[in-house]
Amino acid sequence: MRVNEMTKIALLGCGRIGQMHADNLMAHPKVELVGVFDIYTPASQEVADQHGVRVYASPDDVFADHEIDAVLIATATPTHADFIEAAVAADKAVLCEKPIDLNLDRVNICADRIVGCTRPIQLGFNRRFDPGHKAARQAMIDGEIGDLHQVIITSRDPDMPPRAYYESAGGMFRDMTIHDFDIARYMLGEEPTEVFATASRLIDKPMMDELDDYDTAMFVLTTDSGKQCHINNSRTAAYGYDQRIELLGETGMVISDNRTPHGVKRYSNKIAEAALPYEDFFIERYKQSFDAEIDSFVRAVASNEPVEASFEDGRQALRLAEAAYLSLKEKRAVGMAEIA
Amino acid sequence: MRVNEMTKIALLGCGRIGQMHADNLMAHPKVELVGVFDIYTPASQEVADQHGVRVYASPDDVFADHEIDAVLIATATPTHADFIEAAVAADKAVLCEKPIDLNLDRVNICADRIVGCTRPIQLGFNRRFDPGHKAARQAMIDGEIGDLHQVIITSRDPDMPPRAYYESAGGMFRDMTIHDFDIARYMLGEEPTEVFATASRLIDKPMMDELDDYDTAMFVLTTDSGKQCHINNSRTAAYGYDQRIELLGETGMVISDNRTPHGVKRYSNKIAEAALPYEDFFIERYKQSFDAEIDSFVRAVASNEPVEASFEDGRQALRLAEAAYLSLKEKRAVGMAEIA
Amino acid sequence: MRVNEMTKIALLGCGRIGQMHADNLMAHPKVELVGVFDIYTPASQEVADQHGVRVYASPDDVFADHEIDAVLIATATPTHADFIEAAVAADKAVLCEKPIDLNLDRVNICADRIVGCTRPIQLGFNRRFDPGHKAARQAMIDGEIGDLHQVIITSRDPDMPPRAYYESAGGMFRDMTIHDFDIARYMLGEEPTEVFATASRLIDKPMMDELDDYDTAMFVLTTDSGKQCHINNSRTAAYGYDQRIELLGETGMVISDNRTPHGVKRYSNKIAEAALPYEDFFIERYKQSFDAEIDSFVRAVASNEPVEASFEDGRQALRLAEAAYLSLKEKRAVGMAEIA
Amino acid sequence: MRVNEMTKIALLGCGRIGQMHADNLMAHPKVELVGVFDIYTPASQEVADQHGVRVYASPDDVFADHEIDAVLIATATPTHADFIEAAVAADKAVLCEKPIDLNLDRVNICADRIVGCTRPIQLGFNRRFDPGHKAARQAMIDGEIGDLHQVIITSRDPDMPPRAYYESAGGMFRDMTIHDFDIARYMLGEEPTEVFATASRLIDKPMMDELDDYDTAMFVLTTDSGKQCHINNSRTAAYGYDQRIELLGETGMVISDNRTPHGVKRYSNKIAEAALPYEDFFIERYKQSFDAEIDSFVRAVASNEPVEASFEDGRQALRLAEAAYLSLKEKRAVGMAEIA
Repeated sequence: MRVNEMTKIALLGCGRIGQMHADNLMAHPKVELVGVFDIYTPASQEVADQHGVRVYASPDDVFADHEIDAVLIATATPTHADFIEAAVAADKAVLCEKPIDLNLDRVNICADRIVGCTRPIQLGFNRRFDPGHKAARQAMIDGEIGDLHQVIITSRDPDMPPRAYYESAGGMFRDMTIHDFDIARYMLGEEPTEVFATASRLIDKPMMDELDDYDTAMFVLTTDSGKQCHINNSRTAAYGYDQRIELLGETGMVISDNRTPHGVKRYSNKIAEAALPYEDFFIERYKQSFDAEIDSFVRAVASNEPVEASFEDGRQALRLAEAAYLSLKEKRAVGMAEIA
Repeated sequence: MRVNEMTKIALLGCGRIGQMHADNLMAHPKVELVGVFDIYTPASQEVADQHGVRVYASPDDVFADHEIDAVLIATATPTHADFIEAAVAADKAVLCEKPIDLNLDRVNICADRIVGCTRPIQLGFNRRFDPGHKAARQAMIDGEIGDLHQVIITSRDPDMPPRAYYESAGGMFRDMTIHDFDIARYMLGEEPTEVFATASRLIDKPMMDELDDYDTAMFVLTTDSGKQCHINNSRTAAYGYDQRIELLGETGMVISDNRTPHGVKRYSNKIAEAALPYEDFFIERYKQSFDAEIDSFVRAVASNEPVEASFEDGRQALRLAEAAYLSLKEKRAVGMAEIA
Repeated sequence: MRVNEMTKIALLGCGRIGQMHADNLMAHPKVELVGVFDIYTPASQEVADQHGVRVYASPDDVFADHEIDAVLIATATPTHADFIEAAVAADKAVLCEKPIDLNLDRVNICADRIVGCTRPIQLGFNRRFDPGHKAARQAMIDGEIGDLHQVIITSRDPDMPPRAYYESAGGMFRDMTIHDFDIARYMLGEEPTEVFATASRLIDKPMMDELDDYDTAMFVLTTDSGKQCHINNSRTAAYGYDQRIELLGETGMVISDNRTPHGVKRYSNKIAEAALPYEDFFIERYKQSFDAEIDSFVRAVASNEPVEASFEDGRQALRLAEAAYLSLKEKRAVGMAEIA
Repeated sequence: MRVNEMTKIALLGCGRIGQMHADNLMAHPKVELVGVFDIYTPASQEVADQHGVRVYASPDDVFADHEIDAVLIATATPTHADFIEAAVAADKAVLCEKPIDLNLDRVNICADRIVGCTRPIQLGFNRRFDPGHKAARQAMIDGEIGDLHQVIITSRDPDMPPRAYYESAGGMFRDMTIHDFDIARYMLGEEPTEVFATASRLIDKPMMDELDDYDTAMFVLTTDSGKQCHINNSRTAAYGYDQRIELLGETGMVISDNRTPHGVKRYSNKIAEAALPYEDFFIERYKQSFDAEIDSFVRAVASNEPVEASFEDGRQALRLAEAAYLSLKEKRAVGMAEIA
């Protein structure tokens, strides 16, 4: 494929995140969105109508379409591994939302089945593409802070998701923290070898009890060379979506800090320099990173260069989640060698 | 016209700002960009090819096109008044880049000629649409700072434009400060009645001497009720495009401050909390305001509601520039009643 | 005098500012506060008792005291010039609160009378000694911002002083702006040659009308080389004492910004990163500068080195105030050559 | 004792921290520093000379002095418990630098021996008195952030102490983290019941190996109700002494952030809004808290009110350090019930 050509993509899944991806695909100058599929036809019809593209009758129709180069998988989590395998079998490139699967065994099976695949498979770890996070990492790589010593990741959602969300999300560590586990690996530059986790039910204890899930958590990850990473998570932050990454090194520090919606600051007899609360949630906060994710994928498809967030990255993040659950249960640091 | 219909627009002028508008018009869901014109055909052809729209052979062809509802005028300044008049004669709505003309008499003639026009005529004072500036003004209107006492406008370009730019720009006050004069009026909420100006040649004195222009300036505007507004301008700011508006009131203050490209902050043995320099220039810094400007215009065309930046706003800003030049010459506060 | 010796100082004036100076003199390791005088004996007695020093019966007793090296004059303004002259006659060093006198003629006479004085005479322009302001100026001197182009001074009191204060203060420009005129000269590095001023009555118009004074003002000062300085003043700032200095140069900018009382920031669903209002007023905000002022004076007395804020600095600041009043009256830029 | 009377205090220990305390005691208006002792007589003589107070020949002389109300213990750690016991036996109030002892058994014995003591015993946890930290805690107590969920404590020294310091400091957790353990308890408002710790040798591995100590550490503390606290420590921070406390609650967040030495911000083509590195170390950074600590102690002595940092607080912080060492060794969360 020549770089100047358009990359032809089909979208599987037309829910909230799928709709966002449809918009982003349409806005990309090198992408042609060929068609969409959703198990709920009215949803796919609506997205298709909006963008003037075809509706596929089934996933099989998608994978059988010789016109398309790639699929973007934004369907329910239990379908991800199957669709990745089908796409690989049909020689399509894949951009798949995280997680690959909630079950690490299934992920490992999928990994075996796609061995030798020559087309790009990219995981939806959009935060890697955030300009601020990326610039922080680049500053570190450029030697601005010397050797890395500590990583502090603050990651808090603005508000509790609805109950139905929890029921299929697979638990806080696999659903929410998985992004932070990935960022931890991305920033540490070497694999975490031990994981400690603790979690609480502080925001809605009755619901969390009933669902056997958590709303507030802290983690410590360490590497063989002694680098340390702390993650803190909360399902609510009254002041908006809180996304901060701090890298402490031998000769300096770099922080990718929150940003306010615009530059207004208020002053009164009560406050000074008061900004607005942060962007409400990921679609607004990570708009640039979702765009850059598509762009990176398109370049990988066009050039067959390595993707910036791989299937293996998706598998490793899930392994960290598994280690964290074991740590939570046994109240100890869990070695990654204990995890399949 | 029903709100659901598309607004059909032709673009006159395919230079840098025209190309930006073409992109923004294309991205707007309620706009159909019908065609483009530029006196330099390769320029119009390139924009037309990029967006798949027609090339008009002449401005007359544009105004004669019964298909279009509106024109966006982004041609050279000397054509603005003629094109506004032609558009009004052809019953088209107009979005015209500032200034209307460099000559206030010509502007006044144009004003006479378009009296009674029933279609929206909007001036390209994009900064009114900036979310931060708008939120600052809204906070004031909402009573957050009580009565307004002082406005401080800091407005500095990142770097000197090329010499050719100056030759047709009409002088610093009419070209650069005109935006700040407009923002002063927008924020003061009443007409400035006296203007004081001073200007220097500090950045490139030889070129400024030769062109009889200035690169560094300060202004004080006052209103009959005693409100005060300071503007400072510079043609260079090493740290990027500097755009700040401060509103001091009886019970508080609100500032629309600069924003950095992303939230990275650096720390070393020399610095702490160091952000990146600001966005390089207006296309990046005011991206949201240019989008909102188009959106506001489209709503005005569709509903015939008043525009948010009118022909009269364009005329008043130019009157302030004229008063400022007289003040500079005579080293005194010039009453606006002295200006035609 | 050897550097190791104590400098023996008498204090004239035990009002609010005098009491503060008494505390600061006592705290200085190289100063011995010998005694105090106030026209209102209970005031001097109280300060004397607090610090265990003598009460002088009259100013003459102070100047006749052979034990003391220096006097700190913090009495009412109309006494300043007389006391400076008496101190010089008695061969005492002087640290005198600003202004020298409200009447420029009187200041000029005083200047003539003290010609040839060999002991340090320092004016109480404490802001020159503020660590932030000083560091900003030093950065400029060190070439960090290249040639200076613009100075922006924001200087707003937290609240209107009581009516009685205005009656003896000599008018806003001589009382309040005089500090900013001094800072303008300190930062510009060359004399302002033209002054433009405007002033309003926005906070308490009835009282200002009655007193023929102003509560809100703006100024523009220029130098022969084209450097520009803007000052804005307000007698109220709901968010605390607002003291900012901005230096724009060819290759950068340095700002001496406000500081909050401590580093607490608040976050809620309404605000983010909200600091406390600024320090209430000058005794708190400029604590470090008042201390450094004393220290600088003591070093000047001990070494006979030049003071950092001289009698001539006091005279020039008053000349700028006079020029500003003329500008306000005649609505024009006033050349400094017009002022005696 | 009446509140108006002076509190008479003797100082034991004239090293760096003792000298600082001597200065602060002298500056306090209600304190009379009666005399000083140091095992190294030239040190005590120097401090005595500087402040004009007596030198005690021995600790016994101090405790036998009927004139004094209280002792401030700033001697080497191994003497603390003995001196506390002696002071209590002599019916003196005590302000003792942390830690009480490096050995928890010794602390527990001391606790038994001073049971029934009626005079104030205050521990030198100065950070509790920092205006920013205190205001953050007060905001939480006032309900500004609702129920507390997470505490994040960032605590990093600017630079590695000299080797000799480590040899007697008792290990990073007992020497450095002990302040953070205390702040954790102070902010959590309930006792941590489980502790997880990890530590590395990243800054000077050879020296840390030799001394069996650490230079980089992370901790997670949890309470029975599920509140979580993270602490991160480093022995170097190139950008200065880094002291931040973040309190996340149900309805908001409050942060006690770092402060720069003054308000200067720099702007160039490389950086914007760049502050200076933070204050170098604790004597500068916590100046206000050391002053307030003395003030609080004096009020406790004068009124016999409870101290704000008690012997028991000192013991509990040491128990947390012990738990952290056990956690580090066994790589598990250690229950506080396991610690004596």
